[in-house]
Amino acid sequence: MSDIPENSQAHQRLRLLSEALDSGALKQVARILNSGLSPSDIAHLLESSPPRQRALLWNLVDKELEGDVLQYLNEDIQTEYLSRLNARELAYILEDLESDDLADLLQQLPEKVIAEVLETMDEQDRQRVEKVLAYPEDTAGGLMNTDTITVRPDISIDVVLRYLRQHRALPPMTDSLIVVNRRDEFIGMLPITKMLVSHSTATVREVMDTDVEPIPVTLADTRVATLFARYDLISAPVVSEDGHLLGRITIDDVVDVIREDADQSLMSMAGLDNDEDTFASVWTTTRRRAVWLGVNLLTAFTASAVIGLFEDTIAKVVALAVLMPIVASMGGIAGSQTLTLVIRGMAIGQISGANVRWLLNREFFSGILNGVLWAAVVALAAMAWFQDVLIGAIIAAALVINLVVAALVGTVLPLFLKSRNIDPALAGSVILTTVTDVVGFMSFLGLATLFYA
Amino acid sequence: MSDIPENSQAHQRLRLLSEALDSGALKQVARILNSGLSPSDIAHLLESSPPRQRALLWNLVDKELEGDVLQYLNEDIQTEYLSRLNARELAYILEDLESDDLADLLQQLPEKVIAEVLETMDEQDRQRVEKVLAYPEDTAGGLMNTDTITVRPDISIDVVLRYLRQHRALPPMTDSLIVVNRRDEFIGMLPITKMLVSHSTATVREVMDTDVEPIPVTLADTRVATLFARYDLISAPVVSEDGHLLGRITIDDVVDVIREDADQSLMSMAGLDNDEDTFASVWTTTRRRAVWLGVNLLTAFTASAVIGLFEDTIAKVVALAVLMPIVASMGGIAGSQTLTLVIRGMAIGQISGANVRWLLNREFFSGILNGVLWAAVVALAAMAWFQDVLIGAIIAAALVINLVVAALVGTVLPLFLKSRNIDPALAGSVILTTVTDVVGFMSFLGLATLFYA
Repeated sequence: MSDIPENSQAHQRLRLLSEALDSGALKQVARILNSGLSPSDIAHLLESSPPRQRALLWNLVDKELEGDVLQYLNEDIQTEYLSRLNARELAYILEDLESDDLADLLQQLPEKVIAEVLETMDEQDRQRVEKVLAYPEDTAGGLMNTDTITVRPDISIDVVLRYLRQHRALPPMTDSLIVVNRRDEFIGMLPITKMLVSHSTATVREVMDTDVEPIPVTLADTRVATLFARYDLISAPVVSEDGHLLGRITIDDVVDVIREDADQSLMSMAGLDNDEDTFASVWTTTRRRAVWLGVNLLTAFTASAVIGLFEDTIAKVVALAVLMPIVASMGGIAGSQTLTLVIRGMAIGQISGANVRWLLNREFFSGILNGVLWAAVVALAAMAWFQDVLIGAIIAAALVINLVVAALVGTVLPLFLKSRNIDPALAGSVILTTVTDVVGFMSFLGLATLFYA
Repeated sequence: MSDIPENSQAHQRLRLLSEALDSGALKQVARILNSGLSPSDIAHLLESSPPRQRALLWNLVDKELEGDVLQYLNEDIQTEYLSRLNARELAYILEDLESDDLADLLQQLPEKVIAEVLETMDEQDRQRVEKVLAYPEDTAGGLMNTDTITVRPDISIDVVLRYLRQHRALPPMTDSLIVVNRRDEFIGMLPITKMLVSHSTATVREVMDTDVEPIPVTLADTRVATLFARYDLISAPVVSEDGHLLGRITIDDVVDVIREDADQSLMSMAGLDNDEDTFASVWTTTRRRAVWLGVNLLTAFTASAVIGLFEDTIAKVVALAVLMPIVASMGGIAGSQTLTLVIRGMAIGQISGANVRWLLNREFFSGILNGVLWAAVVALAAMAWFQDVLIGAIIAAALVINLVVAALVGTVLPLFLKSRNIDPALAGSVILTTVTDVVGFMSFLGLATLFYA
């Protein structure tokens, strides 16, 4: 737990806990765990523990805390823990969660179990959860919380303040109240800070902000995140297509979306899953990696097949075998730079139809310039190494070809994949490597065959 | 601008703007730009535009809006625009910014210009900015804002409410007031929502939260982000080493840190800069990419040198040249999976000294299992292809060796690099590729030389 301040109380408790674990003082571990740490701290501790230690710690967590801790764990671990519980146990540990967090957890269970859990809940709670469950997890509807405080536009600030005082506590992250009309249609937001500096006789209508645009319930969660980041929101109202208020989204859930989203590209490019448990078992890890290695083996065999076409040429000029990886790998590097830049640009919404042509031009010319530069360097080195001018000229030409192709494919490929609803980060790097390998070996060995045959 | 809801007003304005731009109706463009879009929308539009269109748009932005827009732009573009202005112009466009945003922008200017801009400011503003400038940009001090509302613990909630009503507006993101004693030392937080549901005769001391830990001013910004995400904070107090309140950090700035931080690993692994302008010119792009291609060329030449050692063996058995890229590339893929997982685990604070040994074991065994699996597949394919049992056995052995080495290096390398303060995402992939190339070619061709010589 090296990521929180060393002199903080949480850090000191964690040090004590780790010492207690080492010395086997389980009672002490349980005490620190259940009264010294927040649920998110416990979740982080579990995620940072290898399986045996993790199982030990999870057994020591109080039953009442389990639901709270579960919501902060990654999906890999959530699924494992949830699958061990029956509907009654699930209902018990999940009962105090907010509706959006509860829906997130439920969505990982089989339909049948979800229905069983919902049956054990009281009518009001069930309706709230079902409202969220009706929307896909990765939309505004899946992110929203149905616990909102709404007010009417025609009452005075004074009345609102008195109404609030009747609550024992306001929902967390309440920076604004939501103003709705009689038909529950969204009208505006009433920031609490604004209320505090207004005359108590003013009406809600006079004080509220009306330039807030409510979030459509079907909006993708990544777009919700963009709106929060761009307009510095703490909470935002969610509405149905016909403008009825359905709930609100708060920044804490959006921060999770932002973190997962950013991780996503990084992990996908290495063929890993976003929710992957860092401390998954040998068996789970092996199985998952095997799939990715298998996919990439196809790429490797394709490259080999291309080389195989030129066996005779290589037998004649062995230097070709020595130099050929340079052409392929430089193409791969150049391509993955472009690919990464475009994937990032798409993720933050900078790249669209309008500016792709410009990008493609830029990449083309930049590919030519870098192609020529490094072709010259490699050609000179190759000539000096093998005392052969021809081989220098051939590798130079192949490098320019491969770098330009890499730049163009790196630009177009992610856009094409996205238009087909394929994750560009996941599929992009494999396809790109196949292209740069094939083009690299083909152009280098093909040219060589022309000139040496 | 495909990342905001299609039916939103902002989206419609952008469509109008783009049409006006295309038809050359600059007056209309200027009108939409300056009265229809928020500063962050304008910044996003600039970042999404190729150079010529960007210059055109920037010229149309009102002088009064420039500072606000600038703070949302990436550093690449910020630096370019700032460098065109003299101290007087800078002071004018920057005067209304919050102290942390202003400090961020100033930090990109030469010392001399910073001093000149500070001189044009009034005493109070200058002191506020200097307070933030005193801390590195990537610490809590660099993130904090010095505009805080503080209250004393012994006054009543009623007095606090009356005090607040004297303000025309509260600072943005004010979810809590900060409670300090007479010596300005931090004591607790007074959430506004809690105040609203308390008796007005209660004292601040009775209502405030004291379990909030203030953030040390020297804490790294990534750790600040972890604290905000873990404890669902909207704002947090920043204190000096001796407990004096210096300012507060708000979630909007933390969201930016989280976004940049996540991008960082992705971009670094491809040798790109986090702040890189997606629409940088051909020349800038070529120069930056050239450096990375040069570094990777060293890796490629190293691999070639290894192959060069075995020229005689390849001349005898050309099939080796056909198959050798498979060994190197499978090692590279396996290694980069481990590397990415470890880099992500380190970034979110899951991996530390205590659990590295377990990880290393897991990777070792998983490497052996996948090595054996794919070695068998590749061996069978190679035997069938070249009708040679020996070459199958050799490539199988080389694959197991390379996959195990890749897994171990992928685990240890990022930890080692981080301990030397080298960015593991940037240097890790190059070094890892060098290792898997060298080990791959060396083991395959070396074994072949033993058995075929």
